[in-house]
Amino acid sequence: MRTYYCGQLRSEHIGETVTLCGWVDRRRDHGGVIFLDLRDRSGVVQIVSDPQRTPTSYKDAETIRGEYVLRITGRVSQRPSDSLNPNLPTGEIEVYVDHIELLNPVHKLMPFPVSSGHTETVREELRLKYRYLDLRRERMSRNLQLRHQVVKAMRRFLEDECGFIEIETPMLTRSTPEGARDYLVPSRVNAGEWYALPQSPQLFKQLLMVSGLDRYYQLARCFRDEDLRADRQPEFTQLDMEMSFMSQEEILELNESLVCHIFKTVKDIDIPRPFPRLTYAESMSRYGTDRPDTRYGMELVDVSDLVKDSGFKVFSGAISAGGIVKVLPIPGGNNAISNVRIKPGGDLFKEAAEAGAKGLAYIRVKDNGEIDTIGAIKDNLSPEQKQELLSRTGAQSGDLLLFGAGDTATVNKTLDRLRQSVARLLGVIEESKLNLLWVTDFPMFEWNADEKRLEAIHHPFTAPNPEDIDDLKNARAQAYDLVYNGLEIGGGSLRIYQREVQERVFEAIGLSPEEANNKFGFLMEAFEYGTPPHGGIAYGLDRLVMLLASEESIRDVIAFPKTQQARCLLTGAPAPIDPIQLKELHVASTVKPKQA
Amino acid sequence: MRTYYCGQLRSEHIGETVTLCGWVDRRRDHGGVIFLDLRDRSGVVQIVSDPQRTPTSYKDAETIRGEYVLRITGRVSQRPSDSLNPNLPTGEIEVYVDHIELLNPVHKLMPFPVSSGHTETVREELRLKYRYLDLRRERMSRNLQLRHQVVKAMRRFLEDECGFIEIETPMLTRSTPEGARDYLVPSRVNAGEWYALPQSPQLFKQLLMVSGLDRYYQLARCFRDEDLRADRQPEFTQLDMEMSFMSQEEILELNESLVCHIFKTVKDIDIPRPFPRLTYAESMSRYGTDRPDTRYGMELVDVSDLVKDSGFKVFSGAISAGGIVKVLPIPGGNNAISNVRIKPGGDLFKEAAEAGAKGLAYIRVKDNGEIDTIGAIKDNLSPEQKQELLSRTGAQSGDLLLFGAGDTATVNKTLDRLRQSVARLLGVIEESKLNLLWVTDFPMFEWNADEKRLEAIHHPFTAPNPEDIDDLKNARAQAYDLVYNGLEIGGGSLRIYQREVQERVFEAIGLSPEEANNKFGFLMEAFEYGTPPHGGIAYGLDRLVMLLASEESIRDVIAFPKTQQARCLLTGAPAPIDPIQLKELHVASTVKPKQA
Repeated sequence: MRTYYCGQLRSEHIGETVTLCGWVDRRRDHGGVIFLDLRDRSGVVQIVSDPQRTPTSYKDAETIRGEYVLRITGRVSQRPSDSLNPNLPTGEIEVYVDHIELLNPVHKLMPFPVSSGHTETVREELRLKYRYLDLRRERMSRNLQLRHQVVKAMRRFLEDECGFIEIETPMLTRSTPEGARDYLVPSRVNAGEWYALPQSPQLFKQLLMVSGLDRYYQLARCFRDEDLRADRQPEFTQLDMEMSFMSQEEILELNESLVCHIFKTVKDIDIPRPFPRLTYAESMSRYGTDRPDTRYGMELVDVSDLVKDSGFKVFSGAISAGGIVKVLPIPGGNNAISNVRIKPGGDLFKEAAEAGAKGLAYIRVKDNGEIDTIGAIKDNLSPEQKQELLSRTGAQSGDLLLFGAGDTATVNKTLDRLRQSVARLLGVIEESKLNLLWVTDFPMFEWNADEKRLEAIHHPFTAPNPEDIDDLKNARAQAYDLVYNGLEIGGGSLRIYQREVQERVFEAIGLSPEEANNKFGFLMEAFEYGTPPHGGIAYGLDRLVMLLASEESIRDVIAFPKTQQARCLLTGAPAPIDPIQLKELHVASTVKPKQA
Repeated sequence: MRTYYCGQLRSEHIGETVTLCGWVDRRRDHGGVIFLDLRDRSGVVQIVSDPQRTPTSYKDAETIRGEYVLRITGRVSQRPSDSLNPNLPTGEIEVYVDHIELLNPVHKLMPFPVSSGHTETVREELRLKYRYLDLRRERMSRNLQLRHQVVKAMRRFLEDECGFIEIETPMLTRSTPEGARDYLVPSRVNAGEWYALPQSPQLFKQLLMVSGLDRYYQLARCFRDEDLRADRQPEFTQLDMEMSFMSQEEILELNESLVCHIFKTVKDIDIPRPFPRLTYAESMSRYGTDRPDTRYGMELVDVSDLVKDSGFKVFSGAISAGGIVKVLPIPGGNNAISNVRIKPGGDLFKEAAEAGAKGLAYIRVKDNGEIDTIGAIKDNLSPEQKQELLSRTGAQSGDLLLFGAGDTATVNKTLDRLRQSVARLLGVIEESKLNLLWVTDFPMFEWNADEKRLEAIHHPFTAPNPEDIDDLKNARAQAYDLVYNGLEIGGGSLRIYQREVQERVFEAIGLSPEEANNKFGFLMEAFEYGTPPHGGIAYGLDRLVMLLASEESIRDVIAFPKTQQARCLLTGAPAPIDPIQLKELHVASTVKPKQA
């Protein structure tokens, strides 16, 4: 139907007769000369019609409007020197159009402009309802093309450089809760029984390793019926990998190569290797989080030993209750951050309170090295203690020290949040910087206070560190997360491959042998037929592409996302269902019909 | 963990010390010398241990059994000339093992043998229950690797040669029945409402064309809750494509290139182009089916005009009732097929009866050109008619003619089935032959006698042939199927892209404007904002790989398939669900608990 894409034409095509298809991005009538910018996936080209040079098309050109779909035939010409457009790849040429075929007009007023020139913000609800128009916009088209490039780079690297095989795993599978709620599907053929949509292909990929397929990958659609949080989707995509006979070190190295390949291919960025590595313990100590943003400093400093006998009971009391006292040092914070912000009612105070802190103690370091703080702190700090505090936190004149005191988890959470807020506030984050690092040696378990039981931090198939096997409840896991500018983009582990270890882990998380056998019996049995050591990783594709596209929401890198209410505004899903359909599925809705 | 895969070692590695990982495929103890065949995904290599040459490993080697998982280190050596194995890629070498590390033993008796030597048939239920062991078998591992190669060839051709972009479409979407039952998913957040799993990404891919993304593809998981038929799966995978601004001819050409590329890459087979094309009308006339197997002849011949006034009422009655009489000529059938098989109780009679035929008239062509048949036919056939019959069917001495008489659909169905059965029976199918052809110009609609309405043959988004637009109910569609040795492997169409045409098609299939608007309003609205002409195709991946792998069931090319009862014998899905989970989803089971 066409001889070129619009965006392909260059001065080398001058003199050629070409046929193009696309949308009218813009139409301008310059007193007798009509300019049509014709747009397709590849870009925009200028089409010209006037009564003298293109008498056969002029009448048609007069009737054309924005977003009409055209097929045109014309001659590629050099633009006059005063109308070259260096900002447009096709800006040296224009096409004198001999024939315009109107393939489809526009019958309605566009709900929002989509042409390349428009950059104004459109309400997201409107964008999602008319997603097919939203995706016409340059930004969104570029995002989807970027997503494709990322996936392509992943596949080719894994296939060509590492011998991975793509294998599909089932979508209609068994409910095996892994922390989040399952989406369930009633079976018509097997009355009263249900499938679950997978939260991840975890068990299947491990079974593929038992099969000897050695290296598996899949761009896997996963489902979690989570409570509605910002920037989660009911369905999401992960790059899912599993490999046999590899040490943790080998897996990390392979994945660094993969990630470097993606950045190089898609963004032409070279990332230095090896990526820095932090143990979980170190990361928590220095940053208060297991996904630290290391583009800036302000590392936390533990001063518990220094203040454990302090007369300031907020400090000494926290420590005697088994907690800690840590400091967030803020270079230049003395001038930049007022007391109003730190004290009750202030934004930083509020931030700390939301993290569970009861107050926010501070020390201001003055020009002469003197300190400024509340009397209760000042009066309880000997000159030696003061000196040690300044030296240990590296505090200079003009700095501000913020204190967290209490149980370890709350202190870390508080100071992590403050560290991030303050960094944004002070503008110390170099946006162009790109920090990737591994966090390793996660604990196997954490305490779930609601359910009063230990819970696997990654999942219960994660292998414990062999050194810690005799104290499983406090063991480190052979687990690793990849962190990108403070966001987790991938996570994985070596897996358990021995029945007795798996049984002990199930026991540790409070799964009775009967439950364990009912849910995971097939996996434990598989371990008895010659299972190789294996491990894997999964990357959140939506988030990775979002970061690469410099977008702030994963909805902007998904073709047809759902709202935070898990709705598709385009198709209207979910929707009520004909009761006959439900009857066939042996289920009934328990929702009472609304009163009229 | 290893320096090579087992199957990689060749004589060029002789002298090297290597580390290998894998499973013990076979263990032989030749009086003091122990041979272990070590297997991984790449193949098998022979490991040797004896007390003299490998004293450090011999004690360990004695304890090793089949399917144990090992990591071994040893020296690659030339095999003695009398024990070279030309059938094995690694057959020139063996590895003298210095160190054996037992990574994981086998604790239980294997439910069936998996080693390379074993080819015996294992019950499918057992294979599916222990699928992770079944996939260790060479045949299954090869099938999954072939599937990967096919998908890889598809992706790369579409991306590199044709500019297609891979885009993911939602799995949780809206129920829009397209012929089969939907799988439904209750929404927890939106009480009383349901998602449906997609039967195909049809609407989304069309909307991507409205977006201007131009060329889309996806390896799409699709779901149909169909009644249980042989070789269908509740979930299946299709290569799904859609493209804008292309004529049917351009789409067929692009797809021929794609298919040729797949066969060349995966099987090194050159398929001649262009593929033959048959219209639906021609295909039905000559073969009685829209997916003819053209590896052999025996084309059907319409003789209605010849027998319409026959005194044999089975013939003339069928025609006066609006039906037809057709002949299936069987070369050499006179000797090969006895009357017992054709008459009531015979296998061919039964085949015909299952297709709806009431009887099976025949004519045997004798050596002298005389015919042998029942009196009622013979007596009502003039010498001229007889001559014309023989000439028109090309019947020679020794042939058998089978007649179908009745309504057109039944006659075609009967003779199509007989043609296939007889071809298998007579062994006239060249198994090595590979016939691909397009069937085009399908009708838009067929009559659904159960629902007493017209029904779209492909789907209601298929564009009618513009020549037939004024008689839509009898119109030909711009639809095409790709047929491979008598099986449909792909099908597609140009799509409707104008609201008024779409409305007329919905009307034709009996969808009221309200229903149409409720279900497809968003699509019809999209057509009003500048929708390009577009079309697409989808290939059934499972079936295509099955054919390429020379398997007879799609279950043999799916990693974790379900049974015909839609069950996963490995995980036990579907399964009963905790009522608390159902309560959260606002649904209840209507299945009564079984009495104790």
